[in-house]
Amino acid sequence: MRKFTIQDLTPTKNDFVKNKNIHWQKPKVSKEQRTKNKGHRPAVIWFTGLPGSGKTTISRELEEKLCDMGVHTYLLDGDNIRHGLCKDLGFSKKDRDENIRRIGEVAKLFVDAGIVVICAFASPYKEQRKMVRNLLSNGEFIEVFVKCPLEICIQRDPKGLYKKAFAGEIKGLTGLDDPYEKPESPEITLETDQLSIDECVNKILNFLKTKKFI
Amino acid sequence: MRKFTIQDLTPTKNDFVKNKNIHWQKPKVSKEQRTKNKGHRPAVIWFTGLPGSGKTTISRELEEKLCDMGVHTYLLDGDNIRHGLCKDLGFSKKDRDENIRRIGEVAKLFVDAGIVVICAFASPYKEQRKMVRNLLSNGEFIEVFVKCPLEICIQRDPKGLYKKAFAGEIKGLTGLDDPYEKPESPEITLETDQLSIDECVNKILNFLKTKKFI
Repeated sequence: MRKFTIQDLTPTKNDFVKNKNIHWQKPKVSKEQRTKNKGHRPAVIWFTGLPGSGKTTISRELEEKLCDMGVHTYLLDGDNIRHGLCKDLGFSKKDRDENIRRIGEVAKLFVDAGIVVICAFASPYKEQRKMVRNLLSNGEFIEVFVKCPLEICIQRDPKGLYKKAFAGEIKGLTGLDDPYEKPESPEITLETDQLSIDECVNKILNFLKTKKFI
Repeated sequence: MRKFTIQDLTPTKNDFVKNKNIHWQKPKVSKEQRTKNKGHRPAVIWFTGLPGSGKTTISRELEEKLCDMGVHTYLLDGDNIRHGLCKDLGFSKKDRDENIRRIGEVAKLFVDAGIVVICAFASPYKEQRKMVRNLLSNGEFIEVFVKCPLEICIQRDPKGLYKKAFAGEIKGLTGLDDPYEKPESPEITLETDQLSIDECVNKILNFLKTKKFI
């Protein structure tokens, strides 16, 4: 019977590496083991684009498709982040950066858990997205540029944000009076003024299949 | 073919509820669907106790056992939280509270993703643990009190924290010069000075089986 003993928890000369692990090493169950159990590889699918470009619509459609295929997904978006983990943050540049940093760290935990995590945030600054990419292993960050002309986003205005901005009720809206920095070399670009929702989703699914994520 | 249209994203009179959902409702794939796919119910197994009481040892052993049983688990502990999501936080009361708040919010996301999330943090204050419990649905928060007399924790001292505290190198160590508030009615109590590691793990597994989580 294994009893808790001082030796069990305190480093000794012969036991140094093993016991060091108790403090610093990764959890016993590794990302590799979890991935093996699931039959698909984890990744972060990171949607970026103007408000109204279609990030939410496509991400939810994609999640449903992947779920039907038996892929374990999780969707992070404003709904479950801004009302919870980041409810203490506002919309200053500093707070927006911290918002994306935390989302990146959470996405990394989900990837470590073996999950395909879908993130849908405007994330307008290149530096923010680069920071998240650098948190992850090579190839795990899939940047999806949801590309749509501003005038069409304004027409769609699903959350009424542009309307509020034009009425002077909100300031610093991405695309209007706050910059949106386009990705230079995203893994995937979706022109949502030209493609159907299904075409957008299929483009992502094809990428995931080609790269052997699913 | 479904094209993105203004109607697709903008509320109209007949379409109000559906389109409202795009903004505010939960992701299309629900916790219930994910749970159904997995064959087990999600939960937070929250270990609390003094430094050296055995939280890390038991949590890693438990994760391995659950993983072998095909249960999808994820372990949150100092290793993956303090170096990532909470690396901006120190050890003041305020920062410790914020640390636990963020962990609670992340645990909630993992539960929403259908996972059995294991959390191993001293979490010495009742209020902190109550706050996390309140984030979750009824029954989903399983508080495990890792109970061990202080003098035995000091003997074990796996991270050398007590040694440092006695040498005056660190201040505010839980159990010594910072309070540890014992849980009043934890779901599970493990007396790690009396039970073996296997007995501790089995006690948790039996609880999960009895409550039909696994």
